Amino acid sequence: MEHAQEITSPPVGRATVRDLAAHLGLSAATVSRALNGRAHVAAETRRRVQEAVRQLDGPAPQPRPRPRRQGQVLLRCPYELTDYFGPIVSSAAETLRLHGREVLLDAGNAGYHDAVLARLPSRRDIAGAVLVLPPESAADLDALRASGTPFVVIDPRVRVPRDVLSVSAANVTGARAATAHLTGLGHRRIGVISAAPVLTAGEDRMAGHASALAEVGALIDPALVRAGEPVTGTGHRLGGELLDLSPRPTAVVCFNDKVAVGVLRAAAERGLRVPADLSVLGFDDIDVSRASTPELTTVRQPLQELGRLAVTALVRVLEGHEAEALHIELATQLVVRGSTGPAPGPDGVVSGAA
Amino acid sequence: MEHAQEITSPPVGRATVRDLAAHLGLSAATVSRALNGRAHVAAETRRRVQEAVRQLDGPAPQPRPRPRRQGQVLLRCPYELTDYFGPIVSSAAETLRLHGREVLLDAGNAGYHDAVLARLPSRRDIAGAVLVLPPESAADLDALRASGTPFVVIDPRVRVPRDVLSVSAANVTGARAATAHLTGLGHRRIGVISAAPVLTAGEDRMAGHASALAEVGALIDPALVRAGEPVTGTGHRLGGELLDLSPRPTAVVCFNDKVAVGVLRAAAERGLRVPADLSVLGFDDIDVSRASTPELTTVRQPLQELGRLAVTALVRVLEGHEAEALHIELATQLVVRGSTGPAPGPDGVVSGAA
Repeated sequence: MEHAQEITSPPVGRATVRDLAAHLGLSAATVSRALNGRAHVAAETRRRVQEAVRQLDGPAPQPRPRPRRQGQVLLRCPYELTDYFGPIVSSAAETLRLHGREVLLDAGNAGYHDAVLARLPSRRDIAGAVLVLPPESAADLDALRASGTPFVVIDPRVRVPRDVLSVSAANVTGARAATAHLTGLGHRRIGVISAAPVLTAGEDRMAGHASALAEVGALIDPALVRAGEPVTGTGHRLGGELLDLSPRPTAVVCFNDKVAVGVLRAAAERGLRVPADLSVLGFDDIDVSRASTPELTTVRQPLQELGRLAVTALVRVLEGHEAEALHIELATQLVVRGSTGPAPGPDGVVSGAA
Repeated sequence: MEHAQEITSPPVGRATVRDLAAHLGLSAATVSRALNGRAHVAAETRRRVQEAVRQLDGPAPQPRPRPRRQGQVLLRCPYELTDYFGPIVSSAAETLRLHGREVLLDAGNAGYHDAVLARLPSRRDIAGAVLVLPPESAADLDALRASGTPFVVIDPRVRVPRDVLSVSAANVTGARAATAHLTGLGHRRIGVISAAPVLTAGEDRMAGHASALAEVGALIDPALVRAGEPVTGTGHRLGGELLDLSPRPTAVVCFNDKVAVGVLRAAAERGLRVPADLSVLGFDDIDVSRASTPELTTVRQPLQELGRLAVTALVRVLEGHEAEALHIELATQLVVRGSTGPAPGPDGVVSGAA
């Protein structure tokens, strides 16, 4: 459905008039007349054109779900509402409320494995759903889509089917900006601790990191890559491993602020000064990023905007409109604070300093 | 209705058979027969006994709400779901789910001033409510109680009426333990920054602080007391004011972890070592308390238990049982980490050290 907005009254779908004309050996004008149901087109020509549309388009586009002006909206976030998920859920709930929708909440780890989505289509009282980091498979999401239940995914864990509404942060761009900030400060030997709460987000951030390194002619060194849970202990443990390498990385990028705080601790235990000896970079910009000494340079995620925009997209569909865009990425923002600085030279002298 | 459990078949209410017999100059046996509707009691005697019950009891006890085995439960928390409110809301939602109750969520600041409670009694589809730090007045809560809608308050902002279910942390005890920890380390000149998210919690914590000081024969010095919003900036600003006093306090107790992190920053800016020159104590034990250097000594609030226990209490009422207790306080726990130590002596020497 990526070109769904191109559909006008005739069901052209993904194939353009030009595609069809070339395929059939007809003029574009004839194809256009046939599609628009005009006169001056032979019945056989019209049949051939319609047949070609089916062939070129593949499966017919899903019918637009009927409007659902009544009914509650399920808000599913089967996790503890930490300072990552909490702002997403409260902004989504608040926005639904502003649209006059009641919110049915499904939160907390206990519901993680529950087959909530399978039961949704039979619930006539539920108009649609906002799914935050759904643990369900792409096939489950596709089945829900096929049932005609409108829903939007925030932070998809898996690559969602093309015609499923989704909203996420621009992870590639965010991580690229983070690593580019470090390469701009002269860092080349950069450790990475991948500890995003979301698998696809972790992959995307690693891609952004690789991209920024490539721009300065460097490749990711697998010896400098670690991965773990998005908690402080991960940074303390894996950051310690990275800092004990020889030669030591001059910077560590963490895909999570709490992990970055753990790296700060590992650095302090080794007598390393941040940022003089080591730069540390986080991701999220949650409270802990301003609680550490020094405060963390990090990539701000637009958590509240994720919730708001997801609801706005869903409500359009509930009201019978076409979705304006299917996969929405929200810009992140690099926030430079005290934990990053120029790379030290091989002799410990800060390079780039006057 | 604290004595509601004494009600047996006759409406004796708060007055006992003995009270009534004394009041009327009758034998206890006669009063008992009149109340139980037995024979061998004159109609006039029965009338006098019933009249006396009304006089001695005051207003009739509220009827126990009828069981509400069906219906959703409203979970209202009209705030952003930070790492304080988020765990409360997700544990309450999860526990409701385990009891087979659907959760209608009302979260986010936008609903703060909305008259949700006034509309609740007319909603036949809503069985009851969990209200987190309700902004409504005690009169509003009393009106909701009078309507017969079952509900429970988590973190009451105002003193709730006696017969309203409520769950909160044991704030007096928690703050008392915190300050006793400091006095035990030799501190007497102790600054306080009151920045609890809840007014009554702030009052209770101040009472606990005063109580621990009193135990060592000290009183709160008003010059050492500050109050502000529960954010890092408050600790940085007000902590700075306290540290610029002469003589300086040797410790600062904060009724919020983020505020304590701000005090650590103010101390670092003044070249003060924590805990050698200054002890700093927080409250809540949220993530930031382990992100700072040194990590914060703090009072752990049982956030998830608050949500779970509130729901358990509400569900008992929804199922037609008497509430086991009306006002529940959950124990807090002092968590000693690196930000507190022995008070420095007047000459900067640590007192109490060998």
